[in-house]
Amino acid sequence: MTQHNVAFLGLGNMGEAMAKNLLKAGHRLTVYNRTASKAADLEKLGATVAATPAAAVADAAFVFSMVTDDAALQELCLGPDGLIAALPAGAVHASCSTVAPDTNRRLAEAHARHGSTLVATPVFGKPDVAAAAKLWLAASGEASARQRLAPLLEALGQGVHDFGDDPGAASTVKLCGNFMLGAAIEAMAEAFTLAQKSGLDRQQVYEFFTSTLFNTPIYKGYGKLVAERHYQPVGAAPAIIRKDMRLVLDESRTHLVPMPFANILHDHLSTTVAKGEQGDWAGFAERITDGAGL
Amino acid sequence: MTQHNVAFLGLGNMGEAMAKNLLKAGHRLTVYNRTASKAADLEKLGATVAATPAAAVADAAFVFSMVTDDAALQELCLGPDGLIAALPAGAVHASCSTVAPDTNRRLAEAHARHGSTLVATPVFGKPDVAAAAKLWLAASGEASARQRLAPLLEALGQGVHDFGDDPGAASTVKLCGNFMLGAAIEAMAEAFTLAQKSGLDRQQVYEFFTSTLFNTPIYKGYGKLVAERHYQPVGAAPAIIRKDMRLVLDESRTHLVPMPFANILHDHLSTTVAKGEQGDWAGFAERITDGAGL
Amino acid sequence: MTQHNVAFLGLGNMGEAMAKNLLKAGHRLTVYNRTASKAADLEKLGATVAATPAAAVADAAFVFSMVTDDAALQELCLGPDGLIAALPAGAVHASCSTVAPDTNRRLAEAHARHGSTLVATPVFGKPDVAAAAKLWLAASGEASARQRLAPLLEALGQGVHDFGDDPGAASTVKLCGNFMLGAAIEAMAEAFTLAQKSGLDRQQVYEFFTSTLFNTPIYKGYGKLVAERHYQPVGAAPAIIRKDMRLVLDESRTHLVPMPFANILHDHLSTTVAKGEQGDWAGFAERITDGAGL
Amino acid sequence: MTQHNVAFLGLGNMGEAMAKNLLKAGHRLTVYNRTASKAADLEKLGATVAATPAAAVADAAFVFSMVTDDAALQELCLGPDGLIAALPAGAVHASCSTVAPDTNRRLAEAHARHGSTLVATPVFGKPDVAAAAKLWLAASGEASARQRLAPLLEALGQGVHDFGDDPGAASTVKLCGNFMLGAAIEAMAEAFTLAQKSGLDRQQVYEFFTSTLFNTPIYKGYGKLVAERHYQPVGAAPAIIRKDMRLVLDESRTHLVPMPFANILHDHLSTTVAKGEQGDWAGFAERITDGAGL
Repeated sequence: MTQHNVAFLGLGNMGEAMAKNLLKAGHRLTVYNRTASKAADLEKLGATVAATPAAAVADAAFVFSMVTDDAALQELCLGPDGLIAALPAGAVHASCSTVAPDTNRRLAEAHARHGSTLVATPVFGKPDVAAAAKLWLAASGEASARQRLAPLLEALGQGVHDFGDDPGAASTVKLCGNFMLGAAIEAMAEAFTLAQKSGLDRQQVYEFFTSTLFNTPIYKGYGKLVAERHYQPVGAAPAIIRKDMRLVLDESRTHLVPMPFANILHDHLSTTVAKGEQGDWAGFAERITDGAGL
Repeated sequence: MTQHNVAFLGLGNMGEAMAKNLLKAGHRLTVYNRTASKAADLEKLGATVAATPAAAVADAAFVFSMVTDDAALQELCLGPDGLIAALPAGAVHASCSTVAPDTNRRLAEAHARHGSTLVATPVFGKPDVAAAAKLWLAASGEASARQRLAPLLEALGQGVHDFGDDPGAASTVKLCGNFMLGAAIEAMAEAFTLAQKSGLDRQQVYEFFTSTLFNTPIYKGYGKLVAERHYQPVGAAPAIIRKDMRLVLDESRTHLVPMPFANILHDHLSTTVAKGEQGDWAGFAERITDGAGL
Repeated sequence: MTQHNVAFLGLGNMGEAMAKNLLKAGHRLTVYNRTASKAADLEKLGATVAATPAAAVADAAFVFSMVTDDAALQELCLGPDGLIAALPAGAVHASCSTVAPDTNRRLAEAHARHGSTLVATPVFGKPDVAAAAKLWLAASGEASARQRLAPLLEALGQGVHDFGDDPGAASTVKLCGNFMLGAAIEAMAEAFTLAQKSGLDRQQVYEFFTSTLFNTPIYKGYGKLVAERHYQPVGAAPAIIRKDMRLVLDESRTHLVPMPFANILHDHLSTTVAKGEQGDWAGFAERITDGAGL
Repeated sequence: MTQHNVAFLGLGNMGEAMAKNLLKAGHRLTVYNRTASKAADLEKLGATVAATPAAAVADAAFVFSMVTDDAALQELCLGPDGLIAALPAGAVHASCSTVAPDTNRRLAEAHARHGSTLVATPVFGKPDVAAAAKLWLAASGEASARQRLAPLLEALGQGVHDFGDDPGAASTVKLCGNFMLGAAIEAMAEAFTLAQKSGLDRQQVYEFFTSTLFNTPIYKGYGKLVAERHYQPVGAAPAIIRKDMRLVLDESRTHLVPMPFANILHDHLSTTVAKGEQGDWAGFAERITDGAGL
């Protein structure tokens, strides 16, 4: 595979794991993180550390970004020392964050005005999945940029799913996915709590369903937290996924789609944040156990 | 394996498929169905056809029942020519129908008074899964009866999961399972509809999720109906599963468990029945597409 | 007005207040309560105390009953020393309790077989309203019995509203009323909590709305509890009204009516009961304040 | 009362009725509407018609605005020929539209930078109530401006309720009010539909409740539309109030308040808009009748 100059911006748990896999694939990597200390491990592995987004992308053929929310991505792209103005003509920006479809659309237009291209490339999987290069990826944006980007994305996971030319499309898919995860967690919370209050063993019910009808890593992984009512380790904090559910509802409003399940998920996450509960976002399952007086 | 005198009562799509597998396993089978014509295929395969539940079980060491609802099971057990009075002492009744936990509990007591035993043995899977002897089974009830029954249950599927001595426990597990299926269907309905109204291809979104995060037969099977908005063939009618959701809610009330998702599923199924819509119960997904003006 | 032999069965806060008004209207009153000590006040005012329902109604032309739930009413009518067998032919039973429509229908049939008549006469109002003879009453049942009963009902409140010959009809109206009260309470809980967290004074918002758009005793009375988050005095306990909401949902299921608001009210009351919270049923408003982290 | 130079911007049904009452009170009125023809009636009554917002307010001591949504108000204030730049120093802007609290807050800051003051003055009531000068008004904003404005507001309704110095506060109160109206409508929709499907007369149930527990113009007025299932005349279109419910939910998210009733109202209005149904916004009650198969 051809090796490229690649920049990676945003070194949280997900970003760091993905950046390491790009290094392993042989690319020359320059990294940037707002809190610079997080770059130390990658520097030891051979990455160059840049002081600003602009400095990080100055020689890049490809840039990856993985940040917390729309505002952070906006700042990274168009803030002081932002990446768009510094990105070489022809470069491709793989926008991995979970953001509103319109955020990727607007930023794609800003890239186009500077001669570069944004491709939305949200990823599915927790940090350990990212580290194992087993993420699932969705991609959408201008076709030739998508094609050039594809080999790099392949290094991050187990396949890239193509959703066409609209740079907002893959973001919509990502939001749908997080919504469906939330629905699975709520379903388990309700079912396990009913079983428990009916005299059954919560753990046994979890094991039954996740070895039969719902025998998937998703149900097994989140279901374990729900069954044990112990929401560690933290894959993503409640406030982060509450933001995602808000984006889901924003889309549902724009497109006039009633989403009663999404409303419930959002409200449960709001209460979890309002109560200051720590732990993984699946901890919103406590809304049901708490509501049942357990 | 030891061969027994076995009775099978209730020859709907599920019951017939299960009865055939008991025949294949070498048992001597007597069958009963309210509409006698449904027994014709089994008779050709070697089963004896009885005119009443009582006649069917007169020589049985084991009885299986698979009927539509609590009232039908009650009638089968305690109605005119009911099975309990006719069942030989020491026989075991495998109660496979989806009924209220208390129904199996009360009928278990009635069996005990006659010297026989009821074991709740609900099954998970559609008729084609039953035919392939790939059902998942849960079992609960008196321990020695459960042990004697186990080899027969093994012939029906891919394993029996034991939920202890309470003959209501396995029914609760079955209700939890149907609830979780319903939640998965609703989640897909909301997600696919949002994606569609956002400009994505409904079918492609379905294929993405069921080949990645939700790569299970359940999501694939029901998701196909939701993606295509074509709810055929009918695995179970909306009225049947609406009854199940009502049982779920009845249990949630008895045990003081808030179940907001279950409420929504029940209401969607009620509307589906109120509108007289035909098709599989997954057709309640139309509540979302219809609500979105599609 | 003609004075009659009247029996009153069930001397809770509501029943006692109503019975006193029948005494004031000049009727000869015999009373019965399961806990006999509650009859002491009425005895001092001139009522005769009976030891059983049967004894209480032996000479009665009219019987009133006001008990907690369907089971209590069933017991009162058809249990040991029940009223139906003892009631003189031609007597009229005013069934005031909040029960399922079908309970009044079935008991009306049992009365008819004994030559007496049950008229459903649910009442609207708290104990202080009952004491002031300002209840609103709905009535349904056989027409001539309703006419004979009307003057007695007039003594209890500010008018009787007639809902025809079906003895279940007035019960349905009562359930609709309690549902609408609950919806008003929940609406205030959500609105006042939003206002409070937005920096407004909860009490002032309450006063504004209940002196303008919602200037009614219902909103003022329940709203005061919600605004102050102090749910005293107890007009009715959460468990009692939870039972009513369950009856509402049972009817909605029988008649295939989606009732999303009723589902929420029921779940909120279930949690209130599960948590063992004391106070008036309007205390379910805490589900919102608690959910908002207040 | 002192007579002032007053400008009125936005002559929909509500605005026109309010403007007429300001004329009746003796003020010198200049009016502006995007569609100029709507000003004809007011011109005949003595108002001056201006071609732009800026022209309308050039001599004004007080300005009233009543427009459809946040974007329209923003445009009116800060767009080309917007009012803020043209408003004389010391003038007071009574902002009557239903908008986000933050919109009034931001515009209040923009006024302050120009030496004028915005006071949020949302109104409660339909156009016929406005015409009869029986609106209820809430007001919030800088204290001395509120005091100067008070006599003019008195001419429009039956009292002004003061919510302090935060120019967003009265907007929050307005949003709470529209939410509570929506909840009352939904409650009636569910109750009347349950009654109807139980065999009762929908109209009679409406009349009973609105002459007893819910004897208020709000319940009578909206309830009539719901009872008759005829949503005419149109007080406000579904899309307008859907926008309001979205603002309610936006506030609930900002302040972390779960609002399950508000979610349902928003979804019902979304479906009503998605289906293109005409009529008053109370027509979202059809979501329940339709869901019940009526």
